This record gives sequence, C-alpha cells and structure tokens, in this order.
Amino acid sequence: MVGAGAIAGPDMRGNVENPIGAAQVPLGVAGPLVVHGEHADGTFYVPLATTEGAVVRSYERGMVAVTRAGGATARVLRDENRATPAFSFAGVEEVVAFARALPALEGELRLAAEATTRHGKLLRVEPRVAGHDVLVTFAFSTGDAGGMNLVARATTAACALLVERFAPTGWSLLSGAEGEKQAGPGLYFGGKGKSVVAGARLPAAVVRQVLGVEPAAMASFWRRCVVAQTEVGAVGINGHFANGLAAIFIACGQDVANVANSAVGVMKLEVAEDGGLQASVHLPSLVVATVGGGTAVGTAPECLGLLGCVGDGKARRFAEIVIATLLAGEISFAAALVAGDHAAAHERYGRKTTP
Amino acid sequence: MVGAGAIAGPDMRGNVENPIGAAQVPLGVAGPLVVHGEHADGTFYVPLATTEGAVVRSYERGMVAVTRAGGATARVLRDENRATPAFSFAGVEEVVAFARALPALEGELRLAAEATTRHGKLLRVEPRVAGHDVLVTFAFSTGDAGGMNLVARATTAACALLVERFAPTGWSLLSGAEGEKQAGPGLYFGGKGKSVVAGARLPAAVVRQVLGVEPAAMASFWRRCVVAQTEVGAVGINGHFANGLAAIFIACGQDVANVANSAVGVMKLEVAEDGGLQASVHLPSLVVATVGGGTAVGTAPECLGLLGCVGDGKARRFAEIVIATLLAGEISFAAALVAGDHAAAHERYGRKTTP
Amino acid sequence: MVGAGAIAGPDMRGNVENPIGAAQVPLGVAGPLVVHGEHADGTFYVPLATTEGAVVRSYERGMVAVTRAGGATARVLRDENRATPAFSFAGVEEVVAFARALPALEGELRLAAEATTRHGKLLRVEPRVAGHDVLVTFAFSTGDAGGMNLVARATTAACALLVERFAPTGWSLLSGAEGEKQAGPGLYFGGKGKSVVAGARLPAAVVRQVLGVEPAAMASFWRRCVVAQTEVGAVGINGHFANGLAAIFIACGQDVANVANSAVGVMKLEVAEDGGLQASVHLPSLVVATVGGGTAVGTAPECLGLLGCVGDGKARRFAEIVIATLLAGEISFAAALVAGDHAAAHERYGRKTTP
Amino acid sequence: MVGAGAIAGPDMRGNVENPIGAAQVPLGVAGPLVVHGEHADGTFYVPLATTEGAVVRSYERGMVAVTRAGGATARVLRDENRATPAFSFAGVEEVVAFARALPALEGELRLAAEATTRHGKLLRVEPRVAGHDVLVTFAFSTGDAGGMNLVARATTAACALLVERFAPTGWSLLSGAEGEKQAGPGLYFGGKGKSVVAGARLPAAVVRQVLGVEPAAMASFWRRCVVAQTEVGAVGINGHFANGLAAIFIACGQDVANVANSAVGVMKLEVAEDGGLQASVHLPSLVVATVGGGTAVGTAPECLGLLGCVGDGKARRFAEIVIATLLAGEISFAAALVAGDHAAAHERYGRKTTP
Repeated sequence: MVGAGAIAGPDMRGNVENPIGAAQVPLGVAGPLVVHGEHADGTFYVPLATTEGAVVRSYERGMVAVTRAGGATARVLRDENRATPAFSFAGVEEVVAFARALPALEGELRLAAEATTRHGKLLRVEPRVAGHDVLVTFAFSTGDAGGMNLVARATTAACALLVERFAPTGWSLLSGAEGEKQAGPGLYFGGKGKSVVAGARLPAAVVRQVLGVEPAAMASFWRRCVVAQTEVGAVGINGHFANGLAAIFIACGQDVANVANSAVGVMKLEVAEDGGLQASVHLPSLVVATVGGGTAVGTAPECLGLLGCVGDGKARRFAEIVIATLLAGEISFAAALVAGDHAAAHERYGRKTTP
Repeated sequence: MVGAGAIAGPDMRGNVENPIGAAQVPLGVAGPLVVHGEHADGTFYVPLATTEGAVVRSYERGMVAVTRAGGATARVLRDENRATPAFSFAGVEEVVAFARALPALEGELRLAAEATTRHGKLLRVEPRVAGHDVLVTFAFSTGDAGGMNLVARATTAACALLVERFAPTGWSLLSGAEGEKQAGPGLYFGGKGKSVVAGARLPAAVVRQVLGVEPAAMASFWRRCVVAQTEVGAVGINGHFANGLAAIFIACGQDVANVANSAVGVMKLEVAEDGGLQASVHLPSLVVATVGGGTAVGTAPECLGLLGCVGDGKARRFAEIVIATLLAGEISFAAALVAGDHAAAHERYGRKTTP
Repeated sequence: MVGAGAIAGPDMRGNVENPIGAAQVPLGVAGPLVVHGEHADGTFYVPLATTEGAVVRSYERGMVAVTRAGGATARVLRDENRATPAFSFAGVEEVVAFARALPALEGELRLAAEATTRHGKLLRVEPRVAGHDVLVTFAFSTGDAGGMNLVARATTAACALLVERFAPTGWSLLSGAEGEKQAGPGLYFGGKGKSVVAGARLPAAVVRQVLGVEPAAMASFWRRCVVAQTEVGAVGINGHFANGLAAIFIACGQDVANVANSAVGVMKLEVAEDGGLQASVHLPSLVVATVGGGTAVGTAPECLGLLGCVGDGKARRFAEIVIATLLAGEISFAAALVAGDHAAAHERYGRKTTP
Repeated sequence: MVGAGAIAGPDMRGNVENPIGAAQVPLGVAGPLVVHGEHADGTFYVPLATTEGAVVRSYERGMVAVTRAGGATARVLRDENRATPAFSFAGVEEVVAFARALPALEGELRLAAEATTRHGKLLRVEPRVAGHDVLVTFAFSTGDAGGMNLVARATTAACALLVERFAPTGWSLLSGAEGEKQAGPGLYFGGKGKSVVAGARLPAAVVRQVLGVEPAAMASFWRRCVVAQTEVGAVGINGHFANGLAAIFIACGQDVANVANSAVGVMKLEVAEDGGLQASVHLPSLVVATVGGGTAVGTAPECLGLLGCVGDGKARRFAEIVIATLLAGEISFAAALVAGDHAAAHERYGRKTTP
C-alpha cells in the first residue's frame, strides 16, 4: 500500500503551518495508457486520488480505448509562468509614457529579476495600458518547478526598480491578470503554465468494442455540448477535465488550487475520414511541477515515480502524460453519455448509500 | 496526529477503483474565525490541507483580523443542484414544440424523477431553445449531499419519458450547460450548488494593526484588480479563492474537482463610511457536502468534526464556514500585496529550496 | 428612390438634439426570402443599409439558397425587456434581508411601476445578492416598442418605493446587469429583448448549386470556427451576425446601438441525415421595435413597410424576418469561406480603390 | 442642413448592391469637446446620428464637464488589423509541425501577402495550436483604412502558399478568432483595430456644477456597476459605449457593424487625491477609418470634415476624438444615474408618445 504511514511533522515544514497531521485521499491507478510524446514515450499507469467512485474506472476505460488505437500523441507547446503587476497613475499621459518606456528597460529589469533566482529566466516584459492602470506581464521560464515563488521574488525585484523610477500612485505585485488559480479566456493567450495538446485517432471497431458506441454519435454529442456550453458562457468545451486534474494533482503533490486555471481548455470529437473517431484536447494553462512545492511530500514521490517523473527535467514529460490522461477521460466520459450508462456506472462503482 | 494510520482498502470501496493506497496531503489548521451565520454561529478552527507554504498562515491572519472586527456574517442564499440534458431535433418546429410542451409535463417528470431517490426533490424543469438543440435544466434540492449521483439517476428517469414521447434525433444526460466542474459566468445565474455570501466590516485600527495596511490602499488595490481582471476576461474578481477551497475540500473529503466551479465568484473591498474596511465575497456555485462522497473516508470525518459539520443537516453550516474562510483569505491576500510582503511571506514559510 | 428628400427638422424632435440634418446610408434590398414564422409567413425582400460592398449580395445569395430549400422556420421564444437597478447596503444582514423581502412586495411594486405606463406590464422582480450589493431585475413586457424608456420610468417608480422603505447606502437605476447595449454571456439567460430562433434544411443539391460547396465542408468549417471562437472567449459562435443586424437596424429606424447585445448568439451547421445542410441560428437578445424610437423617422416607415411591419402588433413579425435574414447571411458567409471566394467577392463588389 | 439631397445611385457603387435609395438618420452635433491627443489637439464638435432622444444632449453635457476641466487626454496605443485563418490536420504531429514551421516562413509569407496591397504591411504571423486545428493570425498595419478587404486579400495570398505546402485537411480564411465584428474578451489582447485610451480629471466643483453630483457618489456608482457587470459575465465595464459609437459611426460613414467589437472596453471612475473625479476609458478594438468604405459616401465627408478628419493620415486623429467622446458620454451617463434623473432626461428629450 502506498502511503501506509503518515507524513511525519518535520517533513511538512515549508508546506503547511500549524500542522495537525495529513489528510488522506483514496488512491487508485488507471492504465495502461500509451503516450507518444516528445518527453514521455511509453506505456503508463496513472495514479489518481479521488473519492468519486467510477472516476478511475472511467479514465481507465478511455485509456484502454486510446491504447488499443495505438496511443495518444502529446506535445508541450509553450512553457512559462508569469506575474502581472499593475501600476496606477494619475493621468493618461503618465500611463502611456510609462508603458512606452518599458521596452528600453527590459535589460535592466532582467538583471534585477534574475539576480534573485538561479532557475528562473525572464523571457519578456509586456505592458498593457488599461485606462489609468498599466498591467505589466513578467513572463519567466521556471524549469521544472511551478515557479510562482521564484516569479514573485524576481518580479518584486524588477518592480522595485520601476516604482523608484516612475513613482506610480499605487501598484501591486499581482493583479489577477496573470491568471494565477483563476479561470478565464485570457488563459488561451498563453503564459500561465504549459500549453499542451494531445490527440488520438480511434478506429471505428475500437470505439464500438471498447466504448460501445458509434463514432458518429460521439461527434454528434460533441456538437450538442458545444452549443450548450456556449449558451452558458463556459470558458472552454469539455466533459470533465477537472476530475482527472484534481485526481492527478492530489496524487502527485501538485498545487491543487491550480485546477482552477488548468481545467480551462477545449476538447474536440469528430468523425475521421476513415469513419473512426478523431479526438483532441488542448489545455492552455496546465501548471505542473516535478520539483518544489509538494512534489517531495508524503506519497507524491511514489506517485511521480510510477510515471518516471521524479525531479529535474521531468516536468514536460509529466505534462504530456497528464494531457494524454485527460484525452482518455474525455473520450470515456462522452461514450458513457452517448451510451446512456453514465448514471448506471456511478451506481455500479459509487457508494452504496441510500439514494 | 490526524491521519496517522492509512485508510484500509475495504474502506475505499465506492470511492475509488484499482486502489493502491492513499495519497497524503499535509494538514494544518487556521483560526480562530468567528462566524455569524444562520447555520454556523461561533468560533471555528478550519482544517486546510495544502502543500503551499504560507497558505495556512495567510488565511489565519485574515481570520484574526475578521475575528477582532467582530466576525464575518455569512448566508446561504440558494441551495440546489442540477443536470442539463440536451435534446436535438431535425427542425426548429419540433424544437420549439418540445420546449413548449415541457411545462405541462412537469408533474409527470417529477413523479418519474423522484421515484428514484429518497432525498432528492425536483424543484423545476427549465427548457431553453438553442437552435436545433434544447437544453433542459432539471434542478433538485439534494439535502446534505453534493447530489450529482442522485441528480443523474433522477434525471435519467425523467429523460426516458421525454425520449420515448418526443423521439429526439439525439440527446445526452449532461451537456455541460449544468456547469458541473466547469468555470463560467453562467454559474452566476444559479442552480449549481450553493450561492453563498459573507461580509465583514473591519475598523481602520484593526486593518492597521493586524494587517499593517490602510483601508484606502486596500480599496485602491481592489479597483486596480477589477480593471486587470476585466481586461483578461476573468469570470469573477478575486485574489485566491481556489487556494482556500482546494485546501478545505481535500481536508474535508469533498469532491475536489468542484474547485473548478466553486472558485468562481466576486470579492469586493471598499472603504466604509467610518473609514474602516468593508469586505464581501459572493460564490454562486459552492458545492459542498456533509454526507456521501468522500465525507466518511479517511481523515474527512475528523476534519468535518472539527467544524461540527458531520452528517445530516450540516451542509449549509459547512458552506457558511467555507465562505467566511474565503473572506478572511481574500482580506489577507490583498493586505500582503498592498504591504508588498507577498513574496517575502512565501520566502518565510515556503520550502527552503534553492530559488 | 427611397429617401430622396431630407428629413425635415421638426420631424426629428424627440429623436435628436442640436439637429444639423440627416446622415445618409446607402440602402439596398435582398431577397426573396421565404419565412415560415408564427407572425411572419411569406416571401420577403429585406432592406439593408450599409456601406460595405458585397454585404447585400452575400445575404441575398443565402436567401436564395434558403428559399429554394423551402424557406426558413422562425420563432420568437421569449419577449421582454428589463432594467436591473443595484442597491448597496453596509452589511450582509441588510443585503440578505432586503433580497428576501422583495417577493412579498411584488404586488406593490407592480402597482407603482404600472401606474407610469399604459403598455408596459411588470412580469416579475428578481433579486440577486452579490456581496454588499443586490441586483434587482425588473422584467417587463413592452408591446411593440423597444421599451427602455417605459422600463426606466416604471422601474424608477418601483425603486422610489424600495429606497424609501429600505434606505440603501446607495443605489442606481441601471447597473449594467440588464445587458442594455452590452455584449455578454448573461444575455443567454434571457430578459433583454426577444429570444429568437431560425432554422432551415438545405438539400445537398441546393447547397452545391446555389452556394457551390459541399454540406460536409460547411459542417467542417463550423467545427473549426467553434474551436477558434472558444479559444478567444467569443460570447457566441457566428460568422457575421453584426453585418445583417446593423444594416437592417439602420434601414428600419431601430436603435442601432442595440447591435452590441443583439449580435450575441449561436449559429450551427451540420450535415443532415439525408446528406443536406442543417443550419440554425439563435439570438437571445434581439431588440427590435415597430413603434416608438426611430421607427417613424425618415425612411424607416418605408423600409418597415416593405416587410409589412409598420406599427402595432408587428414587432414579433419583424423579429422573425430579422432572424431568418441572419440565418441566410450565415449560410452565405460560411459558403464563401469554404469556397475560398470571400476575398474575391469583396473585390468584385467592393469599392475600386487602390488596394 | 447636412444631407438635404439624397445620395445619387451611381455614388453608391461599391458600397451596396440592389440600391433603392438611402436610409436617413437624424444628425445632431455635440460639443465643445477639448481633446489633448497626439493626433487630435483642439476643440471639437462631434456629429452624432441617432434616433434616441437625449443621447446627443447627454454626450454634450459630458463634453462640457470634460472641457471645463481642461479637456480629455487621448492616445492611440496600438493600430493594426488582422485575419485569423484556421487550418485542420488529421493528427497532432502534423498540427504541431505546421505551427513550428511558420516562424521560418514569415519572410515568404510577407512577400506573398504584401504583393497584393500597396498600403498593407504584414506585421507578424502568430500560430496557435488548438487541438487538431491551428489558428494563424496575420496582423497588418492598414494605414487609414479599416482594412479588412486588404487584410483578406493579402492573407488569402499567404494562405495559398501554406495550403500548397502543408496540405491541411481543411482550412478557412476567417475563423472568428480575429474578432471581426464580434465581442469577446480576446479583443483585449490586441490586434483588431486601434487600442485607444482617454482620461480626464474633473475638479469637484465642475462635477457638482455641471453634473449635479458628488465625485464620491460617482465612484460608488462605478463600484456597484463593476460587481453587477461581473455577475453577468459582461466583457467589459461601461455605461453606454455603444450609443456614442453607433451615432458617430453612422454619421461618419464607418462600417457600423464594427460596433460589435468596438464597444468592448473598460471605464473607470475614482475619486482623485484632490477630491475630484478621475475618469478613464479604454477600448481595445476600435475600428475606424478616414479612407475607404463609406467614408466618401453621402454625408460622411461633411461629418468627418467637421472634425478635420477627411482622408489620408487622419484615422488616428479620428480615433482620439472618438475615445474622448466616449469618455464624456460615460461621465454624463453615470451622473444621470447617480442624480436619479436618467428616466427624467429621456422623458424631457424623448418622443412625446403615449407611455
């Protein structure tokens, strides 16, 4: 059994204050999942911590379908993190002058920022005027860490320089425009975590045998969901990204609050030219880490270890496995709804409480 | 220590498949937090499971400020859950005829739905035409459970009746329009979980002494964030709702994927007429439970027990404590950014890794 | 020629201040468009005022396709208008008490509101708590007028009663939550203008002959647009709703600023079971009038007259023609992009200026 | 009188098909408005074509307030236009390979694109992977024209090269991701038209005398609207941007459908340190032109002439006047609601019809 002993108090230093023990979440494993990534290439069994019966089974079913179809292709498209301080000025002249002055200062700002960190690299500084306020995005590469602590520290140093030189009437290190732990369409424009994509083509026979449905019905389901989700203003199109993300994040010592932004994305199901199912998922803002944060705490190293994702140089590998897992989960979720057995599956695997 | 022993395999039946053990998350406690609710009235110490150093300390600081100011007022405004099946038809005539026929069928649908559940009550059926598709919301009261399983089961029964009678060209039990585990502005229109509100008025002296900032600077920070978050299309205004939610949800055996929708909401900071700080938070879609799901698993009963929130009749009490906790967390987060010590606090309490 | 003489100064009283004349916009006509509505049933030629070459031609081509396919079905689903005043209070207790008191006051509020108007009927009063503020929607039926003047007047009267009784710390008649002349997903939840839908089924032969494309390519185009528009956070899915709306609104004396909200909606293109094209459009917030505002000014009566939409009892008829026109426009726009002749059409019909 | 004679048929060639005359819209003028821009510096009287009584008067009142306070500062921050074609591929490998190949092709694409236009310059090519689709933004500077025709033509040429080389399974010249005539938060990220900002500081005495309200009440109104508009998912914060935009666009021969995207933006009202009112507006996507389209048709040259904005080199000047006008309109609208005379003003200036 993973996690048979409790985390010792001293192990928690740096991760929690006023420690009183450790919360426990049931841990299952789903697989096999074949992934063809640039960083992850192989067959994986994915640890999922959840208390919702049927979630592991559902993801596993999708993984089996994807794997029988030859696996999921996964890619990391962009990989960075950011803070977006906001600076206020009394007049539009000052606001615009400030914004226009920044490009010439990028070298100085980089020196100030990077002096505070060994792993963070300042990629760019992007000012945006918004009335009497200016939003300034500091985008960093943060290696295999989530990186918000280093981003905050480095951006603080850069801001000190700006505050001294431009004397804004007010400012703050974070404004919310960075999208830290917040959902919103702004995340599609990149810069908060990893933009990742995965896709698979499932022959019609696999769709029928493993999932019990027709590809055309899956595609029709997707089109129905598109309209439904648009008509409530959803910030993406998906079945249940958050289920898989929360379960992997808890299992693997991730910062679980990042589910808020990481669960934004787009899933697409179409009938392929050969009559099979063409499926893809895109997450613009997946925040995952293999060093720092909770990645060394409790059962996280064991779970990351299951995926070969412990430590330096593994964050993109982990990201590819995560996005492939979500792809499998979407396919399975859609199939359950198309087949009409969604409620039944929850009955079968869920708790046997009085309804 | 809470959670010193691992969850036994048999205890996980109904919560996870392919069990391999239990994930562990460091558990701290923050308080005291005085809450004046209709269901929760008293002083609370709130369990928070997180691996992000400084989160517990930050929430605690906000709780101290709120408590010294006399506490937070909290209310549950609305309490229901729903599924929104979508039905497709070949023509607009059929679509509109279907939608118009539903009100007269509400009694029959209620009978069919409620026959499947002892705790769920069908509150209403709301059709919405959307081109060739019709979205039909089935809204239920679900007692103290999250209730999606009972909602799915009951809605399946009602849909069987509709499918038989109207023969849509396609349909699915969930469409995404219900907002289950998805963020989006549609959540403000109610119906997914509990709509909850909390507020507090902090005398200027408390703001200065406990938080080290001026009320006017807090209000100015809020106005800056409003513009920043609007300019990225954020679906609400907040500092870090997701941090507190994820930490309480893990601690208390909630369905953590519900962070996706629960973290949508609005925070407001203003200078009160007496010069103090007037703060409020509104979450339209908080999904919490005190029975069912993971609430009886592992360390969850102990954590819910800390709050007097175990079992029947406690879900609204729990919701009031959660929203009051988030209010405290927002105040503290804002104060850290106003004082310029956000990065420093993370340095102090975070892991001592190489930057 | 329509509009050969200028509007006389006296005719403008009530429509504009500091009058210096009349702006002129070229006016074309597109048709025939066969509409099967509940209020509009027949063949129509639709006046469109625009300066963008190719717009009239494009809409006309879509109309021909729809008409050859037997016409468009159109329906008005909901028809109302509203104001949403916001009331602020110092504490959450007061806020919630206020919101809970409103249902019992609905009769009194109706009396006060309806005393100010002969045509407006108060349909309902809906309070929503949002932290220290309460948003209260007053929804009215407004007959054949746009109705914002009567809504404002009637809501002012109702608010006077509330202000006197509850003494909010602040309030305002409009808050923006009503969606007046603003785009946003909130419009899908109804209450600002008319919710209207139109659909058509075009046999494959019509799609090929009139539009020069394959139904499958049209459907593929739609799926591509869905992903694209989701990834920028668009508040709907459409090709160019705003073109048709602006052109009809100018021609027919509508309040053109209502394009902002009226252009929110969803278009869907699918391959029908018989291999043809199944197309639909849904606008949740179409604001049109056949009495009041500019409907009696200048060339508006002539243009409304072309459609048999002058005066009382004609607003829903007009709405059905408008939505059918937009359906035609979407089909034609999509076909131009699928065929790759979008730019070419603008070359052909647009101004012959140096590129 | 402006527009005393109708537009002659031949004058409309290139602007409309099937011409039957000219629609007429009452034209008023509001001023004086003092603007301090980089392109517009002086006192202006702004032509507004509308049929909504009180709109001209309301904008004029705001202009008087701004002018007495010394005028509005206005700036154009960014000025470009774009098309965003979407390309589909069968697999994620091909999708990612295509996206990664584009930077190296930018030179070739520029040659192909710019060979089709004398005024358009290709600024950059930005690919974004979105599952099995790739969105590729072609951003152009378009001089003083709106420029969509040249953008479409130039992008068509560039796409021909891409289609030949990469053989996508499908593609289209426009996808909706460009935001052409559509509202959405994506517009804040720039690239569709001009990003413009204006601000003013009004001494408390001016606010009281001209507008009849207190600055603090104006700021409180803004905060209330922020919450209200957030809770309906509005894509910005504003009072009635669309009124002023529609009125100027009709008067000045603009493409009126661009109200849909141009009306997205943020307004902010705060109490300044000296107790006055600090007001600002930001529009990220203002599409205006002084050459091409309808700018030479009917009464447009006269109206543009009033502002000194006829022809080449005047589009940014025009944009600064427009944004300053909207600033004035927002101030006046807010003041009317704060003073409680919004409905009364519409009574006074609106049509004297039976209520």
